[in-house]
Amino acid sequence: MTETVVSSATKELVIGFDRPFCIIGERINPTGRKIMAEEMKNGDYSRVESDAIAQVEAGAHMLDVNAGIPLADEPRILAEAIQLVQGLTDVPLAIDSSIIDALEAGLAVYKGKALVNSVTGEDESLERVLPLVKKHDAAVVAISNDETGISEDIDVRYNVAKKIVERAADHGIKACDVVVDPLVMPIGAINTAGREVLKLIHRLRTELKVNTTCGASNISFGLPNRNGFNGAFISMAIQAGMTSAITNPLHGEVVAASLGADVMLGKDPDCARWIRKFREPAPEGAGAGGRGTGRRGTGRRRARPAA
Amino acid sequence: MTETVVSSATKELVIGFDRPFCIIGERINPTGRKIMAEEMKNGDYSRVESDAIAQVEAGAHMLDVNAGIPLADEPRILAEAIQLVQGLTDVPLAIDSSIIDALEAGLAVYKGKALVNSVTGEDESLERVLPLVKKHDAAVVAISNDETGISEDIDVRYNVAKKIVERAADHGIKACDVVVDPLVMPIGAINTAGREVLKLIHRLRTELKVNTTCGASNISFGLPNRNGFNGAFISMAIQAGMTSAITNPLHGEVVAASLGADVMLGKDPDCARWIRKFREPAPEGAGAGGRGTGRRGTGRRRARPAA
Repeated sequence: MTETVVSSATKELVIGFDRPFCIIGERINPTGRKIMAEEMKNGDYSRVESDAIAQVEAGAHMLDVNAGIPLADEPRILAEAIQLVQGLTDVPLAIDSSIIDALEAGLAVYKGKALVNSVTGEDESLERVLPLVKKHDAAVVAISNDETGISEDIDVRYNVAKKIVERAADHGIKACDVVVDPLVMPIGAINTAGREVLKLIHRLRTELKVNTTCGASNISFGLPNRNGFNGAFISMAIQAGMTSAITNPLHGEVVAASLGADVMLGKDPDCARWIRKFREPAPEGAGAGGRGTGRRGTGRRRARPAA
Repeated sequence: MTETVVSSATKELVIGFDRPFCIIGERINPTGRKIMAEEMKNGDYSRVESDAIAQVEAGAHMLDVNAGIPLADEPRILAEAIQLVQGLTDVPLAIDSSIIDALEAGLAVYKGKALVNSVTGEDESLERVLPLVKKHDAAVVAISNDETGISEDIDVRYNVAKKIVERAADHGIKACDVVVDPLVMPIGAINTAGREVLKLIHRLRTELKVNTTCGASNISFGLPNRNGFNGAFISMAIQAGMTSAITNPLHGEVVAASLGADVMLGKDPDCARWIRKFREPAPEGAGAGGRGTGRRGTGRRRARPAA
């Protein structure tokens, strides 16, 4: 019963086999969002702010923060964004960068126990990221590729994940602090990607006994009705054993798929979280204090188009 | 690799382990629909007609036809409705009644190999329904309850299903012509219903090796956002091994959940059915012959309210 504990200054969150599924909001990421990238580069974090608030309202349990902007001072921007987001919400954060200095800058200002996103099975990555994770007593996302790239063979990907867990142990990082990303490939291009990733998630859960996460939206790349597909994927991945995903909580399909899977698997006693999320607001004038009204998301909110 | 073959006069459909999931449209059913019941009683089948067409357009592979109206001549009405529906669409039908004379009247006029809905594990039901199924060379839905009611113990329900398959064999009906309904209970009332039914579906698939169906919408009875919940349930049930469901194809969530699960499990090569269903229509004036336009449902259609 593996449990990964992450935290903000005031709030602890447990990702675990018997815990509700953890949605890590993916929106604070300038990749492919030109306006957001330009704004962040110029110190304007208004879009980061609104994305943080909207995602938490919509049901994100954690937020991923990425500041990967070409030719910008990523360490400074990532640290600023993290401080801003931690001032706005109390959910724990995933600090997301492929640049070691940016991870370091983010960890330096982070209050609580962060999830570092990410380390791969490449030696250079392992040797640079793992000491940082240990130093800050963080958890880490372990991506199951290495110097040879991403294998289509799930046995190879399993073994890369196993290697990362072992190398983390060498650095004094417990297996429960390694959250494996099995790598979700676009099913439109690789037709076997669905079956394979479900098998790999199941192996990671039952054999390596680690928590898992993934960039869930990758599965539907290039397909129409991506949100609908992502919903089916997420329910099935949770059934296979996946315990978190980096995804878009502003898509009602994603939230319904994950909350529904939790109910199905007995992780939402009395359907309390489902009912709280989806119950109809009290009609106007039906009396004060209706908890179904107010700012709580309804799950029917649609994503804003990417800036 | 069990395959249940059903047919209309001109079209064969195979329900099977390696086949795309079969959606059996549930709408032609006057239960709880007062206006429809009144109309059918008076020989007005306009609502039956529109429900038949809408469900097939939305993606139903079969239609369930039920004429259970209190104090009405159910055998005559069911036979008339079946003849009408078979004149409108070429999908195979499930003939749905708890009255033996109505099943007999429906089977007498049915063109093709029908799915009789249903037999239970009760001796009276077995002795009356199975000879009829054999006589008309039909397939049959086997509901896993008996004289003692519906057990919450899935081992009991499994054994009832096994008994029905054995009794069917005594009547000369092959196991592949018995489609077991494991009985989906409302998860809002019975919190373990999700886990239990997934386990039972898996056992029916791997041990008894039968096709399965269910009244999928039961799972969400009493909950808000029923369509969203039904979607999560259907994807997970398909992953556990369920091969068909009696449900509402007018709900986009249900269709996306089942088509998405098929893609995930490799039952929709090149995502062809997913893309055909959900691709955006060609913009106006973008040239003739766009196959994405026309009458094909978009999956975003919402159900009409029940009459």
